[in-house]
Amino acid sequence: MPHTATADAIKPVSLDALYALIQHDLKYVDALILDRVKGEIPLISDIARHIIASGGKRIRPALTLIASQLCNYEGNRHITLAACVEFIHTATLLHDDVVDESKLRRGLATANEMFGNKASVLVGDFLLSQAFQLMVSDGSLKTLRILSDAAAVLSKGEVMQLMTEGQPETTIESYLQVISSKTAVLFAAACELGAVLAEEEAAEELLREFGIYIGIAFQLVDDVLDYVADEKKLGKHVGDDFQEGKITLPVILAYNAGSRDEKVFWIRTLSDLEQGPGDFAEALSLMHKHQSIEQTISMAERYCDKARQCLDSFPGSRAKSAMLELVDFCTHRLY
Amino acid sequence: MPHTATADAIKPVSLDALYALIQHDLKYVDALILDRVKGEIPLISDIARHIIASGGKRIRPALTLIASQLCNYEGNRHITLAACVEFIHTATLLHDDVVDESKLRRGLATANEMFGNKASVLVGDFLLSQAFQLMVSDGSLKTLRILSDAAAVLSKGEVMQLMTEGQPETTIESYLQVISSKTAVLFAAACELGAVLAEEEAAEELLREFGIYIGIAFQLVDDVLDYVADEKKLGKHVGDDFQEGKITLPVILAYNAGSRDEKVFWIRTLSDLEQGPGDFAEALSLMHKHQSIEQTISMAERYCDKARQCLDSFPGSRAKSAMLELVDFCTHRLY
Repeated sequence: MPHTATADAIKPVSLDALYALIQHDLKYVDALILDRVKGEIPLISDIARHIIASGGKRIRPALTLIASQLCNYEGNRHITLAACVEFIHTATLLHDDVVDESKLRRGLATANEMFGNKASVLVGDFLLSQAFQLMVSDGSLKTLRILSDAAAVLSKGEVMQLMTEGQPETTIESYLQVISSKTAVLFAAACELGAVLAEEEAAEELLREFGIYIGIAFQLVDDVLDYVADEKKLGKHVGDDFQEGKITLPVILAYNAGSRDEKVFWIRTLSDLEQGPGDFAEALSLMHKHQSIEQTISMAERYCDKARQCLDSFPGSRAKSAMLELVDFCTHRLY
Repeated sequence: MPHTATADAIKPVSLDALYALIQHDLKYVDALILDRVKGEIPLISDIARHIIASGGKRIRPALTLIASQLCNYEGNRHITLAACVEFIHTATLLHDDVVDESKLRRGLATANEMFGNKASVLVGDFLLSQAFQLMVSDGSLKTLRILSDAAAVLSKGEVMQLMTEGQPETTIESYLQVISSKTAVLFAAACELGAVLAEEEAAEELLREFGIYIGIAFQLVDDVLDYVADEKKLGKHVGDDFQEGKITLPVILAYNAGSRDEKVFWIRTLSDLEQGPGDFAEALSLMHKHQSIEQTISMAERYCDKARQCLDSFPGSRAKSAMLELVDFCTHRLY
């Protein structure tokens, strides 16, 4: 797959520092998740283990854990809340798999493909219910409000995304609203929880904003990867978004800048879903012609800058450095 | 469709007394539900309006409202919590529609058929998230625990049901566990909330049990109706369960009592889902041969008796009479 022009200029960034700081906590989070899903029903534990074994980056619970460290929280509630965040995310993945017919996620077959549509919907519901039970067990109405609000906005974002499907004339504003809702708001809640746990009220809004910005950047890059990823390296199936008629920023920019003939191409392939063998390559070529991949990455980098600024007022610490590296990683995973 | 042998002996029972007592509250519940779903996203409000317009019996929120009256609760929180209960139920309906490909529910086309699979999953998620936001707004950890526990058991029940699909050798015990979880536990929570709101601790367990028993009876009758309902009268599509290979008590009883050839029939039609034109009639005929419909109704009636007993210690009141009539209605809607 083609890389962007700037690839050679940027050296790889890893999440090693982040995971070194939170690996102990993350093990507790995984143990809590496994504990909630093991039990009498094999289907649930199978799917849950499948998802956990697939070894996603656990970015969202990692945010809760590292934000707690940033705010010097010293209790244990961050484990529970990080697990809630991951449960909400995993439920969304399962429900996304059902609706999007994705063929590959995180380098493994999707749960949907292995277990079927029905199981994905119902086990997703089960995982979501586990999130809510855990939140209630945490016993704080404030954290309950943050997470239930996030879940509500998230589901609204998923519906909004569904409504933009096949509509390349979607505005950039609408697209940003969709990704803010379906992705960034859970990132924001995950970060905000760290401040809430530490009772650092001044940090709540800053960390929430940090989460919004890094979440938007993360999704922008994800949407780019769906066109240019190295499948072997990232385990992500290139072309899923195109195949499903999903409208993302690279598409919107190419459509807006396109000639009348090019617009006809986008409408045939994405609105009517009439796609032939050379169409994905043609889509990619039009994106390169109009620099829509580069522009999307630029926008992601601007959101990364905003995220970094949210951390300005925090004193230097290993947690802060790790969070700044996570921001770097957001766009650098492209290369 | 054939009625059972006892049909003529029993006179019709209505829910008029119940609805007369709660109609005012129920209007507030509907208004609250509509208020939560109206807004910027047409797809969400369309589906929600479709469901509300389809005019289901609202049994579950009705239980919260009437149980509150039974316990002399005088505040307004029962409106919010009844709406939560209905949101959870509606979300389940939407997700059931996706997985079960039901063709007809409540006499109208299912949301799934009108709006598509994707919309049903995602709007279901949205409705569930509204339930949780409303619960959090109610501000009580106790009601949150009751409803989040119910949602967790419910989703587990749905998964358990999925796992029994196509397996006519399922035990009666497993079947009862499935319907307790997927149906009765939400009935139980709906009833218990009435006592919790009124701070009648002694009534909590009684009303919870009442809900379990009436919920089981309700589902047993539903499972019978799926084989013998009058489609025009009940708006229920006969034969859905059979078509989907769903294992319900009438099937289990007929299978257990069946000859070797009959067992082969059940395995071909329900496990292998190889069904021909005369198979549904044959299934019904085997059920009548082994009296599995009648036995299922008898079991429902025993659960109705247990439900009535739970109300014994409550002093006479219009609310109590209405609840007893609701118990009668449970089995009488068969005739």
